[in-house]
Amino acid sequence: MMNEHKLNELKKRLTGVYDLRNAGAVLYWDQTTYMPPGGAEGRGRQQALLAQLAHERFIDPANGRLLDELQADADLLPHDHDDAAYLRVARREYERAIKVPPQFIAELSSHQNESYVAWEHARPENDFGRVRPMLQKTLDLSRRYAEHFAPFAHVADPLIDEADYGMTAAVIRPLFAELRARLAPMVDRVTARPPADDACLRQHYPDAQQWQFNLDIARQIGYDFERGRLDKTAHPFTTSFGAGDIRITTRVAEDDLAYALFSTIHEAGHAMYEQGIDPAFDASPLGQGTSAGVHESQSRLWENVVGRSLDFWEHFFPKAQAIFPAQLSGVSLETFHWAVNRVQRSLIRTEADELTYNLHVMIRFDLELDMLEGKLAIEDLPDAWNARYKSDLGIEPPNNRNGCMQDVHWYAGFIGGSFQGYTLGNIMSGMFYEAALAAHPEIPAEMRAGRFDVLLGWLRNDIYRHGSKFTAAELVQRVTGREMTIEPYIRYLENKYREI
Amino acid sequence: MMNEHKLNELKKRLTGVYDLRNAGAVLYWDQTTYMPPGGAEGRGRQQALLAQLAHERFIDPANGRLLDELQADADLLPHDHDDAAYLRVARREYERAIKVPPQFIAELSSHQNESYVAWEHARPENDFGRVRPMLQKTLDLSRRYAEHFAPFAHVADPLIDEADYGMTAAVIRPLFAELRARLAPMVDRVTARPPADDACLRQHYPDAQQWQFNLDIARQIGYDFERGRLDKTAHPFTTSFGAGDIRITTRVAEDDLAYALFSTIHEAGHAMYEQGIDPAFDASPLGQGTSAGVHESQSRLWENVVGRSLDFWEHFFPKAQAIFPAQLSGVSLETFHWAVNRVQRSLIRTEADELTYNLHVMIRFDLELDMLEGKLAIEDLPDAWNARYKSDLGIEPPNNRNGCMQDVHWYAGFIGGSFQGYTLGNIMSGMFYEAALAAHPEIPAEMRAGRFDVLLGWLRNDIYRHGSKFTAAELVQRVTGREMTIEPYIRYLENKYREI
Repeated sequence: MMNEHKLNELKKRLTGVYDLRNAGAVLYWDQTTYMPPGGAEGRGRQQALLAQLAHERFIDPANGRLLDELQADADLLPHDHDDAAYLRVARREYERAIKVPPQFIAELSSHQNESYVAWEHARPENDFGRVRPMLQKTLDLSRRYAEHFAPFAHVADPLIDEADYGMTAAVIRPLFAELRARLAPMVDRVTARPPADDACLRQHYPDAQQWQFNLDIARQIGYDFERGRLDKTAHPFTTSFGAGDIRITTRVAEDDLAYALFSTIHEAGHAMYEQGIDPAFDASPLGQGTSAGVHESQSRLWENVVGRSLDFWEHFFPKAQAIFPAQLSGVSLETFHWAVNRVQRSLIRTEADELTYNLHVMIRFDLELDMLEGKLAIEDLPDAWNARYKSDLGIEPPNNRNGCMQDVHWYAGFIGGSFQGYTLGNIMSGMFYEAALAAHPEIPAEMRAGRFDVLLGWLRNDIYRHGSKFTAAELVQRVTGREMTIEPYIRYLENKYREI
Repeated sequence: MMNEHKLNELKKRLTGVYDLRNAGAVLYWDQTTYMPPGGAEGRGRQQALLAQLAHERFIDPANGRLLDELQADADLLPHDHDDAAYLRVARREYERAIKVPPQFIAELSSHQNESYVAWEHARPENDFGRVRPMLQKTLDLSRRYAEHFAPFAHVADPLIDEADYGMTAAVIRPLFAELRARLAPMVDRVTARPPADDACLRQHYPDAQQWQFNLDIARQIGYDFERGRLDKTAHPFTTSFGAGDIRITTRVAEDDLAYALFSTIHEAGHAMYEQGIDPAFDASPLGQGTSAGVHESQSRLWENVVGRSLDFWEHFFPKAQAIFPAQLSGVSLETFHWAVNRVQRSLIRTEADELTYNLHVMIRFDLELDMLEGKLAIEDLPDAWNARYKSDLGIEPPNNRNGCMQDVHWYAGFIGGSFQGYTLGNIMSGMFYEAALAAHPEIPAEMRAGRFDVLLGWLRNDIYRHGSKFTAAELVQRVTGREMTIEPYIRYLENKYREI
């Protein structure tokens, strides 16, 4: 039925595109882990060239013709056929790519690099004035980028769609409003009591032992070191060079055991998702996680739902005590568990606890929309940010460094579409985990015994192996039989913090 | 005078070619240092694609047209003008590249990969039968490769020329014959006495301390870690990703202090050459060492002439003793110095001492020519190899693993042009070092004080900064005022081994 010859021709062409992107990912990984300072200039040129070549090869009109010629065949295949999915996602990506002129991409990329460098210098100096003109241009470019995809209901929609396909401001706003309304009283209730004592985490934990502990945990939860590695970097991330090489990074703080630990588990969650994708999808449009939200659902499921659970630490705390006897021998499991779950109204998103984390994200999401709509001027951003922290979290940033300059996203990417994925991920992590527990009620007991293969096997089978074959919405429907809802996530949080 | 617009157009085009090659070098470095096993398949595809793209961009006829259009201008410039050199070397490389059809390159590259994998498995099993058909095809492909450059005096000449531009079998044969005639009696004389005791090197030397010692020595002799790094690999090499990032690798053997040490110094020699190239030549035809021979002259100058000298160890031996007191406190400087210079008739080229090393190389060079000429059949190679080891080195390999299967070169590259660079390098190292001493007689005293900047400064100024601007022959003439001669090298060896 399918024209195999043409399909193979298309696949061969796109494999080249993904091979170039993956080569670029190797260069980025090296840049952020091992590259000596002198390498920066040449590396910038090499990366820009690889990105340009990948883009040129992708938007080649021959790809468009092949997609057109194969469309009739694709329409005859069932929705969940691999080839139908391949052509569906390839077309979606192709049509997105050809809508933006290469000159615009070049201008955007050049500005983003410049803005990132400015932010890197300005943030430690708390110098919002220096990045303000950069941010103004980022806003202009974000709007202009979105315009290529007109018409749209909201100017943020094309930017949101790029990270979380199928999502719109109109869908997210009420979902987030509902979540905020449910979270606020929980935060009030929990923070009315003194925060948990986390002094046990804030002792001297030597790098070498932490490293071994991190490796052990990543391996035991199921991250495959035959197809990956763990290295150090300044801002931890996960990267894929293809199905057989998906790497994670972390950062060790010798005065905080939790810092590297949860960063490693978080990135291992991202990486186990990618490692679980059907290898037949390697170097193809289907060979990545399907959206920012689903990706985050996995990193945060492993980091929080698993990694901060009492079940998890029933197994691992004795191991931590064996590695760090001087620091932990006098600490109880309960103390340790609540230390890694300490709730407090704080300033920094990436260090926030599970309960307040989404409040941080939703502030950013709302401010993005306000800026894009023209309701909020860049010069008023610091005040607007601080006002929202005051109203939503009850604390006010003493400076912009720990306020509206804390996250890299707006300074190296777009204004718009950058943050919703984190909270969508949390919401989905609640849905997915509830479904996993329904299918396998033994998961908590397995965790207490240090076994994670039942959970990982379920996730692989129901979510990971599909890569980008299904959208986030389709995946949620397939896995849970429902549309996106915050209820399981709220139930999870209520259950967890009930004891406080 | 020069058409600046066209020259800049050409330079911009070729920068892209070198950026792609450098990106490929990053992928290779990662593959041999940190890549997990699962990465192999994707990495092979990524590298093949980058190599293909670099080649396609290089042989673009537009480059040929620009070279033609600029030739008249280039002819008016002095030979040593940077732009004249740029155009000269670019044309040479371009004309070499366009002579070989891309299909042939693909066939060659695919065979070389297959052959390398076969050798990797066959060598430990001493299975020459498995690689014999591979080697036969390599010989056929080597001859066919050379045919693209017909006419030539000897079929090996195009292969030699590619590594050591300007050299031919007719020049090298008498040079090597003369060297062999002078070395043979020296080897006889030195090996008539019992070999030096190297037991002091063959103790347990923990990896971590060796690593620090290697880093310290590389740094102190002048390898710049701001523009490079040292990592571990199975078969040590140096690689450049451009002027600002030139990396070295080594391998640590805990039962042999010398193993990593001299490998590190050797690679640091290669790398200091590349780090010393004029940064204006970055990512251009001039931005690499000018030939295999000149490169080897530097690696072996630093490894042997410097690194195995008594002057060097007068400074570093006390440091070695401080790091390894249990192993070295009872050892004298003299014992240590002769241990790292132990001469013996041995089987393995890469572990051979300075005196016998060239005998190993010249056997290979002669056998290469014999095979290319059709005088030696592949099936007779093991016997021919063993016969030459018997006659030249006085020992016979007990198996092919430590005989004709020991070096990767024929199994992953060409038969022809692979080995002459090592001995040409030794010969030039003698000439260059004699010239350095004539200009700066204080160099040995500086070394005894742990200072290497006078030597490095001279090498940078007279050799390194020029990159590929001058050929090996031009460089020798400029630096020494003479043509290539073995005399300084023989004098150096005679002086060194006089005491034995």
